[in-house]
Amino acid sequence: MTNPQHQTDAINADAFEAVCVMGDAARNAQSQLAQANTEAKNELLNAIADALDNHADVIAGANALDMSQAFDDGMDAGKLDRLKFNVPRIAAAAQGVRHVASLPDPVGEIVRGYHLENGLRLQQVRVPIGVLGMIYEARPNVTVDVASLCIKSGNAVLLRGGHAAERTNAATLSIIGDVLAEHGYDQAMIDSVDRYGRAGATAMMEARGHIDVLIPRGGAGLIQAVVRNSKVPVIETGAGNVHIYVDRSGDLDKAIPILINAKTQRVGVCNAAEKLLVHRDVAETFLPKAAAALAEAGVEMHADERAYGIIEQARVKDAHLTHATDEDWDTEYLALEIGIKVVDSLDEAIAHINRHSTGHTESIIAEDYSAIEEFTSRIDSAVVMVNASTRFTDGGVFGFGAELGISTQKMHARGPMGLREMTTTKWIGYGTGQMRA
Amino acid sequence: MTNPQHQTDAINADAFEAVCVMGDAARNAQSQLAQANTEAKNELLNAIADALDNHADVIAGANALDMSQAFDDGMDAGKLDRLKFNVPRIAAAAQGVRHVASLPDPVGEIVRGYHLENGLRLQQVRVPIGVLGMIYEARPNVTVDVASLCIKSGNAVLLRGGHAAERTNAATLSIIGDVLAEHGYDQAMIDSVDRYGRAGATAMMEARGHIDVLIPRGGAGLIQAVVRNSKVPVIETGAGNVHIYVDRSGDLDKAIPILINAKTQRVGVCNAAEKLLVHRDVAETFLPKAAAALAEAGVEMHADERAYGIIEQARVKDAHLTHATDEDWDTEYLALEIGIKVVDSLDEAIAHINRHSTGHTESIIAEDYSAIEEFTSRIDSAVVMVNASTRFTDGGVFGFGAELGISTQKMHARGPMGLREMTTTKWIGYGTGQMRA
Repeated sequence: MTNPQHQTDAINADAFEAVCVMGDAARNAQSQLAQANTEAKNELLNAIADALDNHADVIAGANALDMSQAFDDGMDAGKLDRLKFNVPRIAAAAQGVRHVASLPDPVGEIVRGYHLENGLRLQQVRVPIGVLGMIYEARPNVTVDVASLCIKSGNAVLLRGGHAAERTNAATLSIIGDVLAEHGYDQAMIDSVDRYGRAGATAMMEARGHIDVLIPRGGAGLIQAVVRNSKVPVIETGAGNVHIYVDRSGDLDKAIPILINAKTQRVGVCNAAEKLLVHRDVAETFLPKAAAALAEAGVEMHADERAYGIIEQARVKDAHLTHATDEDWDTEYLALEIGIKVVDSLDEAIAHINRHSTGHTESIIAEDYSAIEEFTSRIDSAVVMVNASTRFTDGGVFGFGAELGISTQKMHARGPMGLREMTTTKWIGYGTGQMRA
Repeated sequence: MTNPQHQTDAINADAFEAVCVMGDAARNAQSQLAQANTEAKNELLNAIADALDNHADVIAGANALDMSQAFDDGMDAGKLDRLKFNVPRIAAAAQGVRHVASLPDPVGEIVRGYHLENGLRLQQVRVPIGVLGMIYEARPNVTVDVASLCIKSGNAVLLRGGHAAERTNAATLSIIGDVLAEHGYDQAMIDSVDRYGRAGATAMMEARGHIDVLIPRGGAGLIQAVVRNSKVPVIETGAGNVHIYVDRSGDLDKAIPILINAKTQRVGVCNAAEKLLVHRDVAETFLPKAAAALAEAGVEMHADERAYGIIEQARVKDAHLTHATDEDWDTEYLALEIGIKVVDSLDEAIAHINRHSTGHTESIIAEDYSAIEEFTSRIDSAVVMVNASTRFTDGGVFGFGAELGISTQKMHARGPMGLREMTTTKWIGYGTGQMRA
């Protein structure tokens, strides 16, 4: 007798057991990597970069099959572009691995250290986390990025990439695995649960004790599903309902280029501006100019009543203007669209942002010292910019060299996550026979 | 018609909604506290300490009712002692609040800061987390500790104390609430979900977005229930299957007093030793002496075969010796009991500990430099001691002044959690019109 429900459970149980075994094997492999010094890790990274270059044709060939299949399955152009991993992109990814090798090693840093009164010499030392789990969409360059960041920070990782990139990821991981083996490392250190499909991702969420931290990277739906269902601790990343607030003290000549840069320099990214709040005292002056610049850049405007009135009256050329709904204030468009609202005060701007923001990045355009102090101190987001584009929230820009993602939660890491954020600490107490009285 | 299942769900839904509302009110109150400077927070703390002293009789009276009820309900002596909150203990708790006032304020610390090449001035600043949730057992002093730590670190908190301490906690929180109100703070900043009973605790676990972090403190059962079921991020605390490893290079004269201190100085605590591993090369010399000292201290010994043989042959006076089972290696006794095992090598000791430990604290007794380096680097626990008692793992001892608990997880905080561990960070970028190229 066939019972589909039962069959599904059985497959999931198999996947769960397999993923737990993979996690334990990864932990075992990780303990070896954790003992490797920086020189050894860098040598490994450079060898991986060379191997990616040398076998780029193999990866590109696998990617061509994934691309063809995805095209037949009707994948849209944006996603197809993210899936594409041709020889020049593989070369760029390999160059990224060499760059990670050149970054400082966070492992071993002494965060704090002091002697207790009884002479016990205490040190808090930075160490790898252990076994990471990464669930991400069909972007093969992420596979290479994550593998290199994990090696440098001394972590093992289990990967679940998007279904559409399975052939590309398998080819990439096979090449990385060969280099690991050649250098005497256990291949279990960087492994994929792709062979279990979606059940692999579900199993990772259940594998508490076998995986230390799970990091979902991708669309809001994917991230929320992981955040809500995982029994493994999660670092929430990504979603950015990003605000720009133009204060009444703002230099409007600075505001326009910052707004256009933040909204249009790259559209489908989490640090792109999604909302414009304008103080009522400058709305009449600023909004017509801003709307003209936005219209010229092809940005559709969802305006609240007051903003709509001002923009409509200014008869902005080619303006695509609609009335904002309540839903707009919580929407991350990831498109050439922006929500526009006039606020009565700095206080209203802060309250609106703290209510509707996803806690990623906000920017204030202001010259008034007190307004800037209040905004930066009261806004509850990972990054607050002053007179600068929100697009700067990025591990590369912040000088981390590379990033695993951008944390929008408050636990463990907040904002761009680089190598340091992929570590935890351990206390070591060096004694000479101390006992507690 | 009465449907008990339906009724339970309805009550839980009410509790969930109420707890969400309380969390939002707490967040609103917290935004006020987050703006308070250190002076204002210290003034508030000292006023709370005075109020606790001045109204100690009210709290003690409520506690007498809780004690009487608990006694009638058959609570054991150890738990009754933890529940007791008489005038001297209230005075000690008030003194603890004054001590927290004297500690440095972690909020506002600049963790990192630098200029980007484009002139953007970046700073990573320490800020409060927001709204904490605390689920703990019937220990009224924890209520005072947590409230004071939260005020100092700028956090709001929702509390769920053990049922048996409800009257005591209500009296304490009423006094703290009065002081908050007198100083112009919103009482919602420190609130209890006790009025919803167990459903209140369950609701806190569901209140993602309304509570930022949940910290369970108490027995292993309570902690695991929260860890497994919470949708709010959790910091796992407490459980300590703590090991002492006596290396073949160990100074055995140091080892015995450290062992006895770690095992018996206080028995029911998470940093007490629970296991003794002994290198085979010193087992014949060390174990008879260790067993004699343990027997004299009244400690029951669960020994593996080799250890049993050695101790039995030594005819240790008054030894309470049994054969260890597999289960022993994973058991936190929290009693005058210890598991004893002979290992063939340092490697075996490390592997055994990393497999069976809860990741709290381990100690090595050794004089050999390489053995110490290997042990401290390969042991995967929050704290590793060298030639010192495991009982030192404590926020007070580490110089944090007070502690919220001891984290045994790797995310966010590891080891004793003091004020610094109750914060997150925020990046602030001060610009002059920078845009991303």
